[in-house]
Amino acid sequence: MSEVLDKPTTKDVADALVAMWKAGQFDQSGEKYWADDVVSYENMPGNEMSEIRGKAGVKAKGDWWNANHEIHGVEVEGPYLNGDQFAVRFKMEVTPKGAERTTLDEIGIYTIRDGKIAEERFFY
Amino acid sequence: MSEVLDKPTTKDVADALVAMWKAGQFDQSGEKYWADDVVSYENMPGNEMSEIRGKAGVKAKGDWWNANHEIHGVEVEGPYLNGDQFAVRFKMEVTPKGAERTTLDEIGIYTIRDGKIAEERFFY
Repeated sequence: MSEVLDKPTTKDVADALVAMWKAGQFDQSGEKYWADDVVSYENMPGNEMSEIRGKAGVKAKGDWWNANHEIHGVEVEGPYLNGDQFAVRFKMEVTPKGAERTTLDEIGIYTIRDGKIAEERFFY
Repeated sequence: MSEVLDKPTTKDVADALVAMWKAGQFDQSGEKYWADDVVSYENMPGNEMSEIRGKAGVKAKGDWWNANHEIHGVEVEGPYLNGDQFAVRFKMEVTPKGAERTTLDEIGIYTIRDGKIAEERFFY
């Protein structure tokens, strides 16, 4: 942020989020940056998790995910900027409950409004 | 494509485009897959190239870019899918005219309608 009282730019929010993700602070980043009416999209046609509206629901999805995956390592590349949106590339080494260790490779597109995440959309 | 007469899915188009880009066929891919009313967005606020509408204009942008950059190598990762959109990560070794050789690292988000690129948006 160029000055403390300035409205944060998309780049300010993107840089702060990427720093938190690089530090593994995925829960904390959501608590701090999800808008109350955030919408989260997964690439899961027909699944109830494909579109979740509201901070409480998105937080619950994160809690479910954390309870069902052991994370061994996270690589975060970005942010890549465009207007009020930015992209991040995540590579995660995880072991899903009851399954083999695997590498997840995905891209997230975040839309920022009023310094908060208004929308997040995951591609894989 | 699962059957020749089926309407191509987003994944079909994404796979075909990524194969062409990996082969360096950027002009040919646009000629084949840009919709007539394609819209192309760059992250260049205030620049006339930030939003270009129509296949002829987007093609002209590509011609300008090719005339002003020598490409030494391209690395393409993806496609990453979500609904009617997909993401691709490009890393390009280029020498812009009159400047130093550099690496471009960007993410493109493509929106597919009726088997064509309706929108492309580049993040960097």
